[in-house]
Amino acid sequence: MRIVSDPKQMQEISIDLRYERKTVGFVPTMGFFHQGHTSLMEYARERADVVVVSLFVNPAQFGPNEDLDRYPRDLDHDREVAASAGVDILFTPDPAAMYAPDASTFVTVEGVSAGLCGASRPTHFRGVATVVTKLFMLVNPTFAVFGEKDRQQLAVISRMVRDLNIPVAVVGRPIVREADGLALSSRNVFLSREERDQAPWINKALEAGAALAASGIRDVKTILAAARDILAAYAPLGAVDYLEAVDPESMQPVETAAGPVVLAAAVQFSRARLIDNRLALPPHEA
Amino acid sequence: MRIVSDPKQMQEISIDLRYERKTVGFVPTMGFFHQGHTSLMEYARERADVVVVSLFVNPAQFGPNEDLDRYPRDLDHDREVAASAGVDILFTPDPAAMYAPDASTFVTVEGVSAGLCGASRPTHFRGVATVVTKLFMLVNPTFAVFGEKDRQQLAVISRMVRDLNIPVAVVGRPIVREADGLALSSRNVFLSREERDQAPWINKALEAGAALAASGIRDVKTILAAARDILAAYAPLGAVDYLEAVDPESMQPVETAAGPVVLAAAVQFSRARLIDNRLALPPHEA
Repeated sequence: MRIVSDPKQMQEISIDLRYERKTVGFVPTMGFFHQGHTSLMEYARERADVVVVSLFVNPAQFGPNEDLDRYPRDLDHDREVAASAGVDILFTPDPAAMYAPDASTFVTVEGVSAGLCGASRPTHFRGVATVVTKLFMLVNPTFAVFGEKDRQQLAVISRMVRDLNIPVAVVGRPIVREADGLALSSRNVFLSREERDQAPWINKALEAGAALAASGIRDVKTILAAARDILAAYAPLGAVDYLEAVDPESMQPVETAAGPVVLAAAVQFSRARLIDNRLALPPHEA
Repeated sequence: MRIVSDPKQMQEISIDLRYERKTVGFVPTMGFFHQGHTSLMEYARERADVVVVSLFVNPAQFGPNEDLDRYPRDLDHDREVAASAGVDILFTPDPAAMYAPDASTFVTVEGVSAGLCGASRPTHFRGVATVVTKLFMLVNPTFAVFGEKDRQQLAVISRMVRDLNIPVAVVGRPIVREADGLALSSRNVFLSREERDQAPWINKALEAGAALAASGIRDVKTILAAARDILAAYAPLGAVDYLEAVDPESMQPVETAAGPVVLAAAVQFSRARLIDNRLALPPHEA
């Protein structure tokens, strides 16, 4: 596995790979790898000639009071994990190499970015869309793989790639969970023992909501109230930032679960804000 | 010369050209070609294996009260001109093929876009930056050529390409002028006879300002006052939208002409808003 930190060098390599007609599978990450990340790497490994993983804790997608400074990092471990997963190139740029001091260009995706995490993190998706555009320009991948845990991010990137005609296929992959259902996240290390015991109820609450939708209950208020009651009862250490039902593509709130609907939640624990979501599939109308 | 109107087809062609290691020179235009355009095409023809010219009157860069509907068009003439200039591909997409009904992604370049034309046309450069990003993704050029008449546009695109790591070399080329100094523009057809007689004074006023700077006058107010007086005296049919001295890269106003400075003007005639600019080179300090 080759480690590349210079963006210019990464771009030269990617241009050469394109000349050689190699397919390039790309997994953009912020590091601190867990099985959620490796599942994306393995997906790319099975389908691409060359697998590139970027490891970049992007300052532009953190708000001023968020956890940029203490975002967990472990480059030695990440290097080993990536090598074991068959990654060919680990791209590890420095923030100073990615952003000129007078950088002033932003990619924004209106609508899709507005609700859910975009409501509590107003510049987050602008930072995500801008850095992913930059990474796509540097890595020039055939396809890029994103986890469905960040489903709004996946929707934002999919819309952006379509709207800007970026020649990259965007692939979403299922959430990887602990045995008790907690979605894997680099931020789970910040949970206290008690919080860790309560956190799986985020998934269980969403599962219960999805089950109600699957059973034919179409009123979103009823579905969400049930999920909210479960969280209140079993995860009292978490403050619900949002719990919503949205359209899978536009990420706009829906009132009636008449087709596929994403149930999404963000829960703030003392030192970690966790997100999770689940696709609910209501039964077809008779 | 091949005419391509489908964006998907354009992108497939450009990916093949890249595989074949062809250099692609690209000239994005809104059509109604004059010698300003052909000078860019000829520059590209001399340096690229394949020359692509796009002809797209981009609705997103026109404000609600601007001249989108009457922007001059003559596709038959343009086709002939492009073929004579040795263009290989004329890319003529429809607006509906370029923008999905729910398109919501925008590229913005703060700072560089704010003053001059950005002040009177608040969404103009957002529309330009977004469509040029799209065109770059579709055409995938080695280099792209822009006229210096739209010098703020050139500064916006240069900054954008740098900030987003877009692998395209941006080239600016000198303004082409009529014998009397009027900068060529597709909008010159909208000038009345009297306005056409007065319009060359835009260039003469900027020339006079540049001459003052070259003679060692560093106070920008003095330089601009002289240029403004000339416009008031000799181009009274035009209303000055702006007349400013700015830094050539950041497009921010300067107060002292201590180094290269762009003198830029926009003048509104009855049916045409004309822009022009000139690089002023003050003498080096002793």
